[in-house]
This record gives sequence, C-alpha cells and structure tokens, in this order.
Amino acid sequence: MNKHWIISLVLTAVVLGIGITGFFMIKGTIPGQLDQPSSILLENNASIEEDKAGETALKDIIQEAQTKVVKIELADGSIGSGFLYNDMGDVITNAHVVHGVKEVTIVTSDEQQFTGTVIGISSDIDIALVRVEGLQGLEPLSIRMDKVEVGEDVLALGNPLGLDNTVTTGIISGVGRDFELPPYTYSDAYQISAPIAPGNSGGPLLLSETGEVIGINSAASEVGTIGFSIPIIDVLSLIKGWSASPMTTLPGVE
Amino acid sequence: MNKHWIISLVLTAVVLGIGITGFFMIKGTIPGQLDQPSSILLENNASIEEDKAGETALKDIIQEAQTKVVKIELADGSIGSGFLYNDMGDVITNAHVVHGVKEVTIVTSDEQQFTGTVIGISSDIDIALVRVEGLQGLEPLSIRMDKVEVGEDVLALGNPLGLDNTVTTGIISGVGRDFELPPYTYSDAYQISAPIAPGNSGGPLLLSETGEVIGINSAASEVGTIGFSIPIIDVLSLIKGWSASPMTTLPGVE
Amino acid sequence: MNKHWIISLVLTAVVLGIGITGFFMIKGTIPGQLDQPSSILLENNASIEEDKAGETALKDIIQEAQTKVVKIELADGSIGSGFLYNDMGDVITNAHVVHGVKEVTIVTSDEQQFTGTVIGISSDIDIALVRVEGLQGLEPLSIRMDKVEVGEDVLALGNPLGLDNTVTTGIISGVGRDFELPPYTYSDAYQISAPIAPGNSGGPLLLSETGEVIGINSAASEVGTIGFSIPIIDVLSLIKGWSASPMTTLPGVE
Repeated sequence: MNKHWIISLVLTAVVLGIGITGFFMIKGTIPGQLDQPSSILLENNASIEEDKAGETALKDIIQEAQTKVVKIELADGSIGSGFLYNDMGDVITNAHVVHGVKEVTIVTSDEQQFTGTVIGISSDIDIALVRVEGLQGLEPLSIRMDKVEVGEDVLALGNPLGLDNTVTTGIISGVGRDFELPPYTYSDAYQISAPIAPGNSGGPLLLSETGEVIGINSAASEVGTIGFSIPIIDVLSLIKGWSASPMTTLPGVE
Repeated sequence: MNKHWIISLVLTAVVLGIGITGFFMIKGTIPGQLDQPSSILLENNASIEEDKAGETALKDIIQEAQTKVVKIELADGSIGSGFLYNDMGDVITNAHVVHGVKEVTIVTSDEQQFTGTVIGISSDIDIALVRVEGLQGLEPLSIRMDKVEVGEDVLALGNPLGLDNTVTTGIISGVGRDFELPPYTYSDAYQISAPIAPGNSGGPLLLSETGEVIGINSAASEVGTIGFSIPIIDVLSLIKGWSASPMTTLPGVE
Repeated sequence: MNKHWIISLVLTAVVLGIGITGFFMIKGTIPGQLDQPSSILLENNASIEEDKAGETALKDIIQEAQTKVVKIELADGSIGSGFLYNDMGDVITNAHVVHGVKEVTIVTSDEQQFTGTVIGISSDIDIALVRVEGLQGLEPLSIRMDKVEVGEDVLALGNPLGLDNTVTTGIISGVGRDFELPPYTYSDAYQISAPIAPGNSGGPLLLSETGEVIGINSAASEVGTIGFSIPIIDVLSLIKGWSASPMTTLPGVE
C-alpha cells in the first residue's frame, strides 16, 4: 500500500508536468549561450546527388521548409516558433506564445529580424496569427487539406530551448487526443513521437513525404517523448478570418 | 570532489528512477483528461495506394495490430496494456499490471469493454495471462519464433499515460539485458529506443517489417529513451502452460 | 505574473540540467545490475539475406562498428565510451571522461579488458586520446572528412547507464551549436535527435548510410531528446598531434 502511495505521487508529478510543460513553452528566458546563430552547411551539396533519392528529398524538404519557419521573441525574453502561412507575411503560432502582447520580434532562419503584429488570437483555442510586413511576398509552406493517420512519418521544426532551425523526426503516434491546458482546450489533436521541447511551440508539424503542414506543435508531456500538435485544417477558418479581418483589440492587451 | 558528490547523487536518482518507472507502470490513476477515446481515421484510405509501398505496409501493420492490443484497467483506476495471444481470448500482459487482482476490465481499440480473468501470473518473471471470453475466436497477433538482433526496426503499441492506441517507432538498441526490479528478474531482455511510458506495460513490441510480436514492453529508464522488453519466446512455455491449465489460486489474491 | 515566476524557475532547472548532464556523463558509478555482458546474437544471420538491402546494411554497419567501440572504466567506477581511431590502438573519447587520471580500463564489445594510457587531453576542448597497446593492429572506424547537413540519418554508439553495446538512431537536428559546459567550450557542434544518456560520452556518432564517424557524442539536455556531438574533423589535428607526440604530463594528474 505504501508502494501505491509512492506511485500516485510520481504520477501526480507527471500530470502537473504536462501542465507545466504546456506553459513552459509559453514564456521563459532561453539562455543566451544556447541561442546561437546556426547556418545550414552547404559544403556537401555536390555529394547530394549521390545520395539515395529518398534521403535527398528529406534534406531538401527540410532546407526548403526551414526558410519559412521563424523564431518569435517577446520583449520579456521568452521565445516560440511560427511559420509562414500566406504571401501576406502572416505567421501562424500558438496563442500561448504571444499571449498578452501586440508586437513581437520575428527572426528568420537566416537571422534577419522583423517586427510582427498580432492580428488574431483565440482565448480558448491555442492559435494566433502574426502579420509580418517584412515577410510579405514570400512563398508560404503548403498545407495538407486532410487529416493524416497513425504511422505517418513527420517532421517537427522550431526552436527548442532556443536552438534555432532545429528539426526532429518521428511518427503520428496517436490521433483524436482531447485535453485541457487551461485556458486552452485541445480537441482531436495529433500525438507525435518527434521530440519537441519548450521553444518548439507554434512551429509546424510537416508530413515527411511531402513537406506539407499538418499541424501546429503545441504541448508535450515530460515523459515518453509524447508531443501534441493541433491539426491545421481544424483551425484554418479561424486563421483565414483573422487574415481577412485583423483583430484591432487583443484580449489581455490594453 | 564536491563535484563528484553531486554527480553520485544524480546517478542515484537515475537508479531509483528506473525502479520507480518499473512500478510506475504498475499502478496509478491516469488522469481522465488524457484518457480519451481515440479512433483510427480512415478518411485517407483512398490515398493509401498512392503511397510508397513501404509506408503503406507500416500503416497497414499498425492498423491491423491495434485491433489486437487492449487496455487493461483495474478497479483502483490503474492501467496497463496487453495483446491477444491465441483464439481463446487469452491476453498477455505484465505481472506487475495485474498483480493482486483476479478480474480486470479489458478495453479494445474500438472502445468495447470486456471482463478478463487472470489465469496465470508469475511471482518472479514479469508476465501474466488474462482470459477474456468476449475476445474468443478473434485472430491473435503473430509471434516471431526467434530472437532478433540489434538494429532491427520495431514498433511499441500500448497506452502510455492512458493515451489509447499509441504507437511509437525505434530500434532494438541492445540485447542481453539482465536486471532486477524486485520482485521481478528480467533476463536477456531487449533494450529499445521506441519511447514508452507508464501505461505501455504489457503492450507488444513488434518487428516493423512483419508486424510479428517479439517482446512484451515492461520497463523504462527515466533518461535517454531507454526501454526494456521481455523476449516473447523466452516466456512462451510459461504462457502455454497457463492457457492449457489456468491457475485457480493467484498469489496475493485471497 | 506568478505563473511567469514558476516558468522561469523551471527553465533555470533546464539550464542547470544541461550543465549537470554534461558532468553527469563524466563520473559516477553505474549500477552493477545494469552493467551486464551483452552479446550480439547471430542466430538470425541466415535470414539476413532475405531482408531488404537497406536494413541489412544498417545491421551490418552496426555490428561492424560495435567491435571498434569501447567502454572506458575509471578506478572510481565511473564510465564512458570511446572508439578506435587508428591502427596504433588509439581511442578517442571526451576529456571529461578521463579527466584527472593517467590509466583507464578499456572493455571491448566482446568483453575483453585492456589497460589504456591517456596520451592527450585538452583543458578547454572536450577531447582526449587513450593509447591501448592491446588494440594495436586492429582496423579503426572510418572518418568522414567533411561536415554533414541537417536531416542526415545518424547512429550513436556507446554505453548509456553502463548498458554495453547500445546503439540508437536519429538525425542531425541542428548544426553550428556553440555553448559552454565549463571548463569546456563546444563550437560548431552537431545537435542530434538520437537519444544519448550518461555513459555515452566519448562514443562515436556515425553516418547511418556509410558507418563513417562524423562526431564525438559529448553532452545532452535533460528535455526533448537533444544531444550534442563534436564534429570530428574539427579536432582531428589535435588528435593527430597527440598520437604523434604523446603528452608526458597530464593536467590535473601529478
């Protein structure tokens, strides 16, 4: 019985952990020493053609996608991730990344900095949209217009712990996940095995085969490499609405 | 020297951690919010044929296997995993999942509930067998009749943190692992890199290439994505014995 | 605001965690129960030819490479990993694995024991060289003479938690990482998603496609399966220098 008590304690920690991890990705100063410029090495391009077709495709997909993924920095030093959604410079991210602010700093994969303005944010769905004038005219990531199944190979792009231009691989480990990380409700989310960490929030989940966006990486448990990603087709109408009619007042911002 | 002391402390925690994780998977109430129905989306079936042959096979193997993997729930709210072993409705799981009880609730991947009766359990090997009359006649998972080598691609199926119908991928990272998580002794176990977490206990480890069962996922360390799986061929005679001659009294159950 | 405070606390722990993990891999008694002989099972060799060409190659690469990866044990019970660099029996490892000692015990994948002598160690770059007379004449691992890109498939070999002959798979998740784990400075390091844990330090990072060494696995964060590997071509001249002119006095060793 004593043993049971110990176990309950540990599992409680896990549950709290999931909550903390959710917020964890919201705010927090990433240490400067980990937040270094990273460049994609191109020295090996000559040898790429020698690779197997499949591998070339994956590296090409990653390099192409990374140019459309950004780091989002807040004045308080907290960071998150985001990705280009249309040719108007609109960047999708999590609501928890930009909650409470109107302006953010956007850093591209080649270290250019821009100012972005939050033009849409939900109070219960963990999605927001940031308009970045300096990114207007750039081609965005493609979006997969249907849901995917368990077992699909996926890529998670973003800035875990502030490590720019990070990519990890995994699969769709589960589907249909419903849970709450107040104030947000997650419905029908993907469960992924691609490792994500604080700083990944708002970054895209891509189908490895095509490079299309299928989700927005949003939360993680503290055990077992279990991440959660919001299916992008479930929030597209919300995002389109903000893009067409930007919000003029934001919740929590005076 | 002070530094050494700190390090010893940390490593001690890791060792305890392995112990705790072992038990961790035994008992413990999984939070309701994570324990949602999950359904396998079939909308994309039309596009499956367009996929590369290899990927289709993996998704097919996963979908087929998931119908033979069950969640095991105890009256105290703790959960584990198990899988169909023969056409008599016998489900293999870990002894630590069903220790101390005679009846358990079995939940299939399509959310059907059945009552299962523990008909075999070992006191020192972490294996048990549960008979589920409602599952009689169903075709079981295939079993690989020899050991596999380091480097093989594997799938781990089960219910980590209560997340139903979860599957993760990895490889056989090591073989021949011997360790103790009292009262159980693990001999010649597989070490796997497929992430597993509390709730995965008793679920099957499959060879990705064929979908055959090679092990029973049983324990994990708290660092480094290190899991352990009992080779199924090492415990088959024990299981066959219970299936032919069910135990009438169970240790720890009056 | 209170929430922010909690989050800062958690992130501080992560930062410390990275530091601790760095040292974590330096010293510490790995529990005997985890430190069991492991043998590569060869029973299935007959079936290897039936496998797909790609998979055969991976298992062959792993089995071949494991014979050139060693466990390094210190008198105080701490352990690390290393790998054969040339036919003079010189083994590359991390400086933090052998810091403060002149002689170490080398254990090969087939459980042979040898004495090794530290013949080169840096005080600021986390690299050392150990000469093992008993390994002279053996063919070493091949070294990749250029840098690799994000997205490459990699293998990490070593002894996490003392688990001999462990191999994990992942990708190059990032490049150009610069950070400090005093007294060591890491420059332009690879970030990897292959899980590593204490005991992996000094082990080789291999390109999965060819089995060539591309890095020396050296540190890990405590979250998100984030490991760091020192690019081998950046330290080759240092290593060659030690091999040609062994150090006679070592820092921190009287």
